[in-house]
Amino acid sequence: MLLLALKVAEYMEPLSTWLDVSADSDFSIYNIPFGICSLHGSSPRVCTRIGNYVIDLSVLHRMGYLPTAEWPEVVFENSRLNEFISMGKQQTSALRKALQDLFSGKNPALMNHKEHQATVIHTLADVRMLMPVHIPNYTDFYSSKEHATNVGMMFRDPANALLPNWLHLPVGYHGRASSITVSGTPFHRPHGQIKPPDAEMPFFSASRQLDFELEMAFIIGKPTGHGQIISTAEAEDYIFGMVIFNDWSARDIQAWEYVPLGPFLGKNFNSTISPWVVTLEALEPFRKKGPAQNPPVLPYLQGKEDSTFDIELQVDLIASGGVSKTLCNSNFSFLYWSMAQQLAHHTVNGCNVQTGDVYASGTISGSDSASFGSMLELTWRGTKPVQLPDGTNRKFVEDGDTIVMKAWSSKDGVRVGFGTCESKVLPAIELK
Amino acid sequence: MLLLALKVAEYMEPLSTWLDVSADSDFSIYNIPFGICSLHGSSPRVCTRIGNYVIDLSVLHRMGYLPTAEWPEVVFENSRLNEFISMGKQQTSALRKALQDLFSGKNPALMNHKEHQATVIHTLADVRMLMPVHIPNYTDFYSSKEHATNVGMMFRDPANALLPNWLHLPVGYHGRASSITVSGTPFHRPHGQIKPPDAEMPFFSASRQLDFELEMAFIIGKPTGHGQIISTAEAEDYIFGMVIFNDWSARDIQAWEYVPLGPFLGKNFNSTISPWVVTLEALEPFRKKGPAQNPPVLPYLQGKEDSTFDIELQVDLIASGGVSKTLCNSNFSFLYWSMAQQLAHHTVNGCNVQTGDVYASGTISGSDSASFGSMLELTWRGTKPVQLPDGTNRKFVEDGDTIVMKAWSSKDGVRVGFGTCESKVLPAIELK
Repeated sequence: MLLLALKVAEYMEPLSTWLDVSADSDFSIYNIPFGICSLHGSSPRVCTRIGNYVIDLSVLHRMGYLPTAEWPEVVFENSRLNEFISMGKQQTSALRKALQDLFSGKNPALMNHKEHQATVIHTLADVRMLMPVHIPNYTDFYSSKEHATNVGMMFRDPANALLPNWLHLPVGYHGRASSITVSGTPFHRPHGQIKPPDAEMPFFSASRQLDFELEMAFIIGKPTGHGQIISTAEAEDYIFGMVIFNDWSARDIQAWEYVPLGPFLGKNFNSTISPWVVTLEALEPFRKKGPAQNPPVLPYLQGKEDSTFDIELQVDLIASGGVSKTLCNSNFSFLYWSMAQQLAHHTVNGCNVQTGDVYASGTISGSDSASFGSMLELTWRGTKPVQLPDGTNRKFVEDGDTIVMKAWSSKDGVRVGFGTCESKVLPAIELK
Repeated sequence: MLLLALKVAEYMEPLSTWLDVSADSDFSIYNIPFGICSLHGSSPRVCTRIGNYVIDLSVLHRMGYLPTAEWPEVVFENSRLNEFISMGKQQTSALRKALQDLFSGKNPALMNHKEHQATVIHTLADVRMLMPVHIPNYTDFYSSKEHATNVGMMFRDPANALLPNWLHLPVGYHGRASSITVSGTPFHRPHGQIKPPDAEMPFFSASRQLDFELEMAFIIGKPTGHGQIISTAEAEDYIFGMVIFNDWSARDIQAWEYVPLGPFLGKNFNSTISPWVVTLEALEPFRKKGPAQNPPVLPYLQGKEDSTFDIELQVDLIASGGVSKTLCNSNFSFLYWSMAQQLAHHTVNGCNVQTGDVYASGTISGSDSASFGSMLELTWRGTKPVQLPDGTNRKFVEDGDTIVMKAWSSKDGVRVGFGTCESKVLPAIELK
């Protein structure tokens, strides 16, 4: 048993847990994320995680350990978090607090009941993590100034890399909800239509420029009506929590198709989401000021300064033979546009949001080339391949490669993280 | 009672009905579309329409008139068609045929039972039509060569109006599913960020260039798995039916935001869908050859020649005072890319489709200026206002205007139509 008694932000009391949790775990007692798991193939249910233990909330609820007697069973015995989230932040926050009490021993009921522990607490090997939410709508923003500048330099005009609207509004586009899969789901390299600049005609081929995009995404916690506007001040009330998001991209398909209506088949073959939704409450200690915005934004986009969170990001590549390399380290707080601004902008025309909607940040690159959040930028469109420890190199992602993304916040000894978001690229399906 | 005994396509036998249906009704006995209605505020249920009568399929089913004894009640007593559609085309086609038998008198059971008729057959005044389907994903194509050329001439380069990819693939983008509403639902003029070319900085305002877009859309009838490709030959098996689609657009918001990632807030404030889903079977007699495609398309986009349908289209504007004008007449068969090509392209990278997905055509313009499917084109970006009969004119759509779209097929005296898709523009909501 590891006792944590730490200097933390004033509003947070020091917590310890009677579970065996290592000091560098993303899933400290301060976290309490929510997800959907299946235990040995059982029906899906809502769960949380502390250290390397997965806690079955449906059983905890049935046993009366949760202060939510009035919640129907279906909230916890469910294949998605949407009904759970729909109970409202007041309820889910109270539940998170109750779970902290239960596993810190402040409420010793479970700590003293070994038999109950055996039915509630499972090891990672016993569970399979499933898609956390049903996603009614998915939007992808483009909120990293460094990423937008890099892409503009490569694909358009190095002297005018940022388009005129970029500094005035959080540019975004609608993505495909159906093909978002949970971490651990492999997918096949996509086919598509490609026309390299030097080719006279397009041809059909498996993508030759498969790329990851390091992103974070937020998940909507309560819906709006058609015509309703969310202000920047209200925005965080509508955000339940966050996940890691890998916006897989086929650069060659994208480059040929994307004018004038934006990315389509170059993106919608697969995106990967991490399984644990970390609540905004858990991220609160890591709140931070975002970059200065100049020129000043229009009033509907103005808001509080501490509008972002200090979340460290890392991307590793693991080749099929096992050799691995860290490709980049970035930070969520590099983003120019905050989540509150993204949501205020998205709804300012009356567009309604729905519980479970996913809003991704866009690729998160920093100013240093070691912080670039895609192969496109890291290898500068393939012109500077990345060297792997075994002497091979990568211009883009190859068959058999697994891309592993990690995200965590750490301050004054308190760590709250997202675990990993990983997926493996399988060879293109052979066509008949 | 009107008897129809007509020369029709060989595979279609002549049909009449014992209901009183006018010869110019979109909802002839040949049609049998499906929708969701509420009767005097009752719970929603699946229905069809013949002439001006709405037929309650949930009651018909309960009374044993449908050859679908094994279908659970929930298929017909439902707020959306998705479960109904999910039963499969073989079942829904058999049901459509049984309804034609029942109302043609070939099966005289209901014709001879006045009391049952009273509980099953309702007048239009008694029902409210609701959203026909839950829409998991919505994609909008850009498949009219004339429309893409017109837009390219206005916004880019008149000499090179069509972008290089346009003739090689059906350009499309993801739209917003949450804000699609059923015909009859008014909406408020959207606010947004606007920067006219002569302004130095963007400003915030209600849109000054609100526009309709005349489109048709198809609805997916069966899902694919992640990674599965639908060939052009298979495509129509995956399409349940079609609706009229008004892709409302705020041209000023769109013009400022859309580079480089495509339309976003200029589109996602509202789209309007017609309530009756007309099946592909009902449209079969109107099958037609599409435009020649030159240069030849890649093999994955090749398919049968009779790939489109002769569907007449019309847009009327009704001003708040009642004055009205037909703005344009177009035809679905003008589209360069077929639905089969759109679906084959959309899935060629493994993107999965889901039952209820909506795939819209893009604005359907013809070569004649009277067939242009948007105010943008009809008034050539406001430079040639449309005159209304009362002497006023329109550059774009104004507050209080209702846009009414109609679509129908007619051949050898057989008419199959969609009814109307209409919605009224309310003034922008006053902001606090």
